[in-house]
Amino acid sequence: MINPTEPEGPQDAGRPANQGRRVAARNRAALIAAAREVFAEQGLDAPLSAVARRAGVGQGSLYRHFADRIALATAVLDENVQHVEQAAAEPGADLASVLGVITWQITRSTAFVDLLRIRGDDEHARALAGRVHTVLSRCLPAGHRLSADDVMLAVAMVSGAVAGPTPQERERRALAAWSLLGVEVGPLRPVETAAEDA
Amino acid sequence: MINPTEPEGPQDAGRPANQGRRVAARNRAALIAAAREVFAEQGLDAPLSAVARRAGVGQGSLYRHFADRIALATAVLDENVQHVEQAAAEPGADLASVLGVITWQITRSTAFVDLLRIRGDDEHARALAGRVHTVLSRCLPAGHRLSADDVMLAVAMVSGAVAGPTPQERERRALAAWSLLGVEVGPLRPVETAAEDA
Repeated sequence: MINPTEPEGPQDAGRPANQGRRVAARNRAALIAAAREVFAEQGLDAPLSAVARRAGVGQGSLYRHFADRIALATAVLDENVQHVEQAAAEPGADLASVLGVITWQITRSTAFVDLLRIRGDDEHARALAGRVHTVLSRCLPAGHRLSADDVMLAVAMVSGAVAGPTPQERERRALAAWSLLGVEVGPLRPVETAAEDA
Repeated sequence: MINPTEPEGPQDAGRPANQGRRVAARNRAALIAAAREVFAEQGLDAPLSAVARRAGVGQGSLYRHFADRIALATAVLDENVQHVEQAAAEPGADLASVLGVITWQITRSTAFVDLLRIRGDDEHARALAGRVHTVLSRCLPAGHRLSADDVMLAVAMVSGAVAGPTPQERERRALAAWSLLGVEVGPLRPVETAAEDA
């Protein structure tokens, strides 16, 4: 079950170190992407073996990168926030385009939102929320009727509205929720993961 | 641990049957009220012994009324919906006063909302949502800018916004969420449980 391209220990000693690091980084990225999909489909109780299988990575490799389910879910949320920051840095980015990315994440990460709730006022979660708050503050045009706090609350509200068996149904409800709030949202879209070894 | 006022079996054979039923109904109501508080404070994983203790009822009695945790949580949700219907039937009731009751429940029943989410598209949950939809349809003044579907979505959105360690903090966020939606909400208040044996 161990992915033969992942360094496994002493037998890799002769391999160039940076090649090993590249493979490890690729496996880690694949595991995060797979976890996002599998948890979204099957909930937070999904077997981690399903995540490893979806990523095409061995279970031993999964546990080397992520000690447990919480560590894996946290990595997905970290990447979500990184993507929001990336989206805000794109040329022509504005509040609507950034909200489009956040809303796409909400419709794909309901399980992670539940996890955040279950963990409660965890310090790491607060730090992530703080980074999203900073991004939203920078995107808000001067004189906008909503404050950054309002938009953070609105994001939580849209998360609450998002339910349904398919991403399409969840997107429909998310857009209806933004519409009730009178907030314009750009296209719902993921952000491409930046190549880690470009 | 068994509450001596609850009929336990053959030794109650000589007692008038309606007295036994009265005690059983009172215990059941106390268990539901205690479950609402304990689950809200400690989450859905709270030990059922804590619920029995809070209700002043024996654990044997708890399990006679409720086969498991889900049955108990479902009874709380059933009572919530009954209370919403009761609130809508009060003289002078309007959309704002009914939303005040629903919002009070949201701030006290976050754990139950999570349970509903976890159970997914359960038929019983859908039936309960249908009854709330009926109440809201009847309360909506003709020509209101929102439809009953919109108000149901708004309730889900407010649920998403409600987080925080204390009921006060959760109420503050719930009211901020309604305010973002531009929806007037009456005082947040519980509905008194109708006496079962008046």
